[in-house]
Amino acid sequence: MFDHMALIGVGLIGGSLARAVRQYGLAKHITGFTNSIQSGRRALELGVVDDIANSAGEAVVGADIVVLATPMTAMRPLLVDLAPAMGSSCILTDVGSVKQSLIREVAEYCPELVSRFVPAHPIAGIEASGVDASFAELFRGKNVVLTPTPEVNPDCVDRVAGMWRETGMHVLKMPAAEHDKIFASTSHLPHLVAYSLVNYMAGEENSEQLFDLAAGGFYDFTRIASSDPVMWRDVCLTNREAILDSLAGYRQVLESLEEHISQSDGEEIESLFASSRRARDRGLTGKRQV
Amino acid sequence: MFDHMALIGVGLIGGSLARAVRQYGLAKHITGFTNSIQSGRRALELGVVDDIANSAGEAVVGADIVVLATPMTAMRPLLVDLAPAMGSSCILTDVGSVKQSLIREVAEYCPELVSRFVPAHPIAGIEASGVDASFAELFRGKNVVLTPTPEVNPDCVDRVAGMWRETGMHVLKMPAAEHDKIFASTSHLPHLVAYSLVNYMAGEENSEQLFDLAAGGFYDFTRIASSDPVMWRDVCLTNREAILDSLAGYRQVLESLEEHISQSDGEEIESLFASSRRARDRGLTGKRQV
Repeated sequence: MFDHMALIGVGLIGGSLARAVRQYGLAKHITGFTNSIQSGRRALELGVVDDIANSAGEAVVGADIVVLATPMTAMRPLLVDLAPAMGSSCILTDVGSVKQSLIREVAEYCPELVSRFVPAHPIAGIEASGVDASFAELFRGKNVVLTPTPEVNPDCVDRVAGMWRETGMHVLKMPAAEHDKIFASTSHLPHLVAYSLVNYMAGEENSEQLFDLAAGGFYDFTRIASSDPVMWRDVCLTNREAILDSLAGYRQVLESLEEHISQSDGEEIESLFASSRRARDRGLTGKRQV
Repeated sequence: MFDHMALIGVGLIGGSLARAVRQYGLAKHITGFTNSIQSGRRALELGVVDDIANSAGEAVVGADIVVLATPMTAMRPLLVDLAPAMGSSCILTDVGSVKQSLIREVAEYCPELVSRFVPAHPIAGIEASGVDASFAELFRGKNVVLTPTPEVNPDCVDRVAGMWRETGMHVLKMPAAEHDKIFASTSHLPHLVAYSLVNYMAGEENSEQLFDLAAGGFYDFTRIASSDPVMWRDVCLTNREAILDSLAGYRQVLESLEEHISQSDGEEIESLFASSRRARDRGLTGKRQV
């Protein structure tokens, strides 16, 4: 499918993609680049990549596809480094959780890449991070969302879609603005809610006792609060507006529940809980994959 | 251990306790009572109880232990029915998630039971409810918290503690006020947060799409939002003050994160996320059971 993949960033997602690319024979050669000498060494030791380049620019020389798999605020400076070294038909894609910000940055800093940039977001992840946690089957049965702009060459989109399909993903396409709004609610907000819940408990005087007495349900509930802080910081910074909208909407629902509790309005409380249970169960039933 | 257990309420917890009591031979005979004819019939069909009484009063005749396992607001009216029919040495206990309210009600409506009432909260549950979801191993390796008042006969406490120990639980004791405050944070608050998150998404115009695109992490995160609405309504009504305190504290943490996001303060955001991850991971490491 590809001759030479340049993988910029070899963490959980980049590492898992590289493993899947190898497993399904999607590229003959994978060159990695990472700012962390340690991650680069581990990626080599684990056989995740064929070699590690000394710079992003060096990594992309001769590549026919470049995959950005770093935290999102690291992508722009890397882009400026690697763009001049990319071949004229090389495809650029990424795996970021927010799509509009990188699209804007490519248009601003590397306009020559706009027609070959296929923004992608594989909806897959676990709370562990780093190349040691990576595995080829991470993507199987999950969705990947592509958000190509009208300027992108459809052949590039098809090739990136084909790659993800081979890793076992279901490919969806939608405008980047729609993507960012949807994932602000379904993914970014839950992370902020979980981080805040854990931080609230950690800030209490008897926090040690609280964590000790919390049931398994609490640890399941807050699993996502053990996600990578740098990645999630970048999500907040790059999808700020949509996230603030979601937070405001969520706080309104929470405050209305608080009001019903303070008024001991059992009927309203029960009705809110019952509709929540119905909505979640309906969502689960309707889902392709959980 | 007991000759005759009267089980008032045969849902997930009551049913699971009855199964465990049978499995470990902790009572020779179990009589159930439930307001739902259907649940009573299922409990009999499943062999969870030996017989089903026609009233709470009838259920407790000849019993040496009475276990209240209904939603909490149903306990008080039942108490008034069954107290006069209880033998003079019969133990009363319960499985409610909130302890102070029932202690107050026993003192007010059945003062003769105060010395034999052992308030208990087994910290075990799954999001499914009803006797069909019950299983004997629900309690194994989990904590049960007893909150006996100074007036309780220590022998009664020992017998109830012994019963839970036999089901595989680790027995803790603490004052009821402390219990209610701790579980407002570690259990009640997370449920309210999860219910609200699902309701926020359900209230959005494109909610069907949101639920369809939510990743597995979202469904894990909101598993507890499929918990029994009546039980959780009663938790809110009976532990109102402590829950409102926890909600206020949590909202403060959430609002402070919102403020950092609106100011694009990456350093503060990352530091909040990192401390949350550390606190959760430390909590997990310290736990006996997860």
